Amino acid sequence: MHPRAVVLLSGGLDSSTTLFMAREQGFELHALSFDYGQRHRVELRAAKRVAKRAGVTSHRVVKLDLRGMGGSALTDEIDVPKHRSVAEIGCDIPVTYVPARNTIFLSYALGLAEVLGAEAIFLGVNALDFSGYPDCRPDYIEAFERLANLATKAAVESSRPISIQTPLMHMNKAEIVLKARSLGLDISMTMSCYDPTSEGLPCGACDACLLREQGIAQANQS
Amino acid sequence: MHPRAVVLLSGGLDSSTTLFMAREQGFELHALSFDYGQRHRVELRAAKRVAKRAGVTSHRVVKLDLRGMGGSALTDEIDVPKHRSVAEIGCDIPVTYVPARNTIFLSYALGLAEVLGAEAIFLGVNALDFSGYPDCRPDYIEAFERLANLATKAAVESSRPISIQTPLMHMNKAEIVLKARSLGLDISMTMSCYDPTSEGLPCGACDACLLREQGIAQANQS
Repeated sequence: MHPRAVVLLSGGLDSSTTLFMAREQGFELHALSFDYGQRHRVELRAAKRVAKRAGVTSHRVVKLDLRGMGGSALTDEIDVPKHRSVAEIGCDIPVTYVPARNTIFLSYALGLAEVLGAEAIFLGVNALDFSGYPDCRPDYIEAFERLANLATKAAVESSRPISIQTPLMHMNKAEIVLKARSLGLDISMTMSCYDPTSEGLPCGACDACLLREQGIAQANQS
Repeated sequence: MHPRAVVLLSGGLDSSTTLFMAREQGFELHALSFDYGQRHRVELRAAKRVAKRAGVTSHRVVKLDLRGMGGSALTDEIDVPKHRSVAEIGCDIPVTYVPARNTIFLSYALGLAEVLGAEAIFLGVNALDFSGYPDCRPDYIEAFERLANLATKAAVESSRPISIQTPLMHMNKAEIVLKARSLGLDISMTMSCYDPTSEGLPCGACDACLLREQGIAQANQS
């Protein structure tokens, strides 16, 4: 029997690559996505495509009620910033930051991991994120892992630890693109845009689009 | 201006008493409840009554989708245990344990605390709970507090820490009953039962009912 992993899957390039990396490591895959009133719900369709392609054992889409909290351009009527330089991106905490989002996502993943008896939770945070988002940094991930192993019945009764795996942590976008290709992930199936058009196409101008395009360009030069 | 607190409020005796204790400490109160498909939704009506009586500044009820995860008598079709002795209650992890529930609740509270600029999150866990539920123990609470202060924009940008307050941690039920009375909380407004009747009355036989009744009896003798 393969060990089980819960993989947080938004449908973007990073989480999709993470899913394929978990597969490469031999885990039985249980994908977990969230429908939290994000503007870019087209991401969820991408998540379904990618999960199917990866051959996951299960894929849950959990509805989350984050809009009542306010405070983010991804869930509220704040404008998504466009056409920023790559130097500007990641210097500060962006308006697209959703308060405590990764903590909420990881908490659900922890509950699911406990129910499934999974031994790992995979999360696609990476080096480009953690300068801007506090909950993408290595010390945050370590703190969550510590919490997870105090919070769960499995940890208490059988001392079977749950690990939080962030295989992209120290990769740049070009490296992620190359890794995705090496694992057979067609990255055109993924959707990273914060503000897609009504036809579901990427805007090409938000931070996520710019970082992705730069990563693809750099990967194509290597 | 009073400092703000987010108070997790189920509508049970413990969280209601915690709300009144936060009020006693001079906080501006922001109550947070969850509708997570629990059998005892009558709790939410109690939460609304208690929040109003406490004079909270806001009360949010967030819909959570926990049923898909399974694994608990509170959200699934597992029978709630009845007529256990008080000695049996709290010796093991009960079937009413919802995987990662407190972690999910605290994560939402953290997001709300960040949006509101609150400096404290109050949670009504207590000594009778933490022997049975792993996520009610002091070391778990400390680990969450540590995580909270790595996860949030406020902690990163202004180093304003968020504290997780558990004022009932070392109190028994009788002490909680006495404290509630001393603060003017009419505990008949609260609802602790895991399995109320269709008329919304407590069953009188689940662990929560038994602990509560024993606490009231002891308080009345003191």
